[in-house]
Amino acid sequence: MKATALLRAPSKLKLRESDAARRPLDDGDKAAVKDRTEKLLERVAELQPMLHAQRRHKVLLVLQGMDASGKDGAIRTLFGQINPVGIRAEWFQAPTAVEAAHDYLWRVHRKVPGLGELTVFNRSHYEDVLVARVLGTVDAREAGRRLAQIRDFERMLAETGTTILKVFLHISKDEQRERLQARIDDPEKQWKFDPSDIAQRAKWNTFQRLYEEVIAATDADHAPWYVVPADSKPHRDLAIAALLLETLKGLKPRWPKPHPMVKDLKIR
Amino acid sequence: MKATALLRAPSKLKLRESDAARRPLDDGDKAAVKDRTEKLLERVAELQPMLHAQRRHKVLLVLQGMDASGKDGAIRTLFGQINPVGIRAEWFQAPTAVEAAHDYLWRVHRKVPGLGELTVFNRSHYEDVLVARVLGTVDAREAGRRLAQIRDFERMLAETGTTILKVFLHISKDEQRERLQARIDDPEKQWKFDPSDIAQRAKWNTFQRLYEEVIAATDADHAPWYVVPADSKPHRDLAIAALLLETLKGLKPRWPKPHPMVKDLKIR
Repeated sequence: MKATALLRAPSKLKLRESDAARRPLDDGDKAAVKDRTEKLLERVAELQPMLHAQRRHKVLLVLQGMDASGKDGAIRTLFGQINPVGIRAEWFQAPTAVEAAHDYLWRVHRKVPGLGELTVFNRSHYEDVLVARVLGTVDAREAGRRLAQIRDFERMLAETGTTILKVFLHISKDEQRERLQARIDDPEKQWKFDPSDIAQRAKWNTFQRLYEEVIAATDADHAPWYVVPADSKPHRDLAIAALLLETLKGLKPRWPKPHPMVKDLKIR
Repeated sequence: MKATALLRAPSKLKLRESDAARRPLDDGDKAAVKDRTEKLLERVAELQPMLHAQRRHKVLLVLQGMDASGKDGAIRTLFGQINPVGIRAEWFQAPTAVEAAHDYLWRVHRKVPGLGELTVFNRSHYEDVLVARVLGTVDAREAGRRLAQIRDFERMLAETGTTILKVFLHISKDEQRERLQARIDDPEKQWKFDPSDIAQRAKWNTFQRLYEEVIAATDADHAPWYVVPADSKPHRDLAIAALLLETLKGLKPRWPKPHPMVKDLKIR
């Protein structure tokens, strides 16, 4: 069964009932899973230059998840071994003054992939219906309006040639504790710690409920959500690699046709 | 001797007298040179995340060179094994209508690195004083004005915190013939062929003379030009890796200081 079918968000997603340690694609040990991921990524590395040369498709991979759910780590595994030409990783932090002076989709729209590009969003416009609600800058009514706007925005992107895949990295609250603690205990990672990590952890159940709502409200065949169990890092990477590869294969990238002059041409 | 010293463009550059097959850094065989490059790049991969986390420096690597001089290949070797976060490869092609409606530095300025970023330009504003002159869209007087503008622009970038290194990939005319022919003979690379490649090759001597002029006019300690002999691909990659590593080391990147709350913190 394909990863895109296995991992697609169910219409009534219950994160509490969805085991973050589940291994739906491969229950092998970490080394075997890493090898398998490596092989899938080699295939991705073959297809992506064609995608880029062809300038016909645009691919947008959105990664969402709680703090320490592995968004950075997944990007490192997925794109750490690939030619950066045609690949972009975009990272949405707190809006700058100029960004905040515009609607919340403005800065996102500027960063969507162009023809031939494969763009990864590390966080995205979904923060504007998640953390914004928890912080109370957006109420339920406004959030409902935004969810409709996001559906419209993503449908427009899809209709104008963008292939969208959205991945929720699902970790357990225990796993998050371990990872945040490890970050604090590692002198090279301490700088990543932000007091808001603790404030957000305290709102764990609220975030989980909001994720369920938001995913249900914005899942669509042209902009599908996938729920990736992410307590195991190698299994998480395998799942995203499989989703990405299946998506790229579906686009059937090919080398562009050469210029007719090329035939039997001899350079002097 | 350091690569930055060995490869710095001489004040009176004569490309005709500069052997493109020279191996100033290492005259070992290709396998040994590849190993050495790999080691330098591992060190680059250690320093770059600190540069990115620190958000203090900005690094701009400009790659220029004739068609088939190896700009794409060098980017693949240098950044093909590195986490894309904080790295951007920008590719300047013929200006779009919007770009052409602005001054020639407009599109370049939009793409310079921000704090913590390492950005590679595959071609750059230098095309606007090279190919633009050969095509005749810019005359000698206008080119002189542009060279002064480019000096001013790069000095401003340097003064506002950008570390600039500019690399000219120097290949011989014979090597270019072989590479263009190989591109034409390889079904997977034929699509790269553009009739303008031949037109530009026919103007080889003009381009070489213009490169000498442009490099001499824009070399500066805050925006140095390096001439990398590029007939051997592994030796070319070694040279750029060494230049990049020396430049990054000079910035002494460090992990940012952690938030004071981190001390003895236990996550619950």
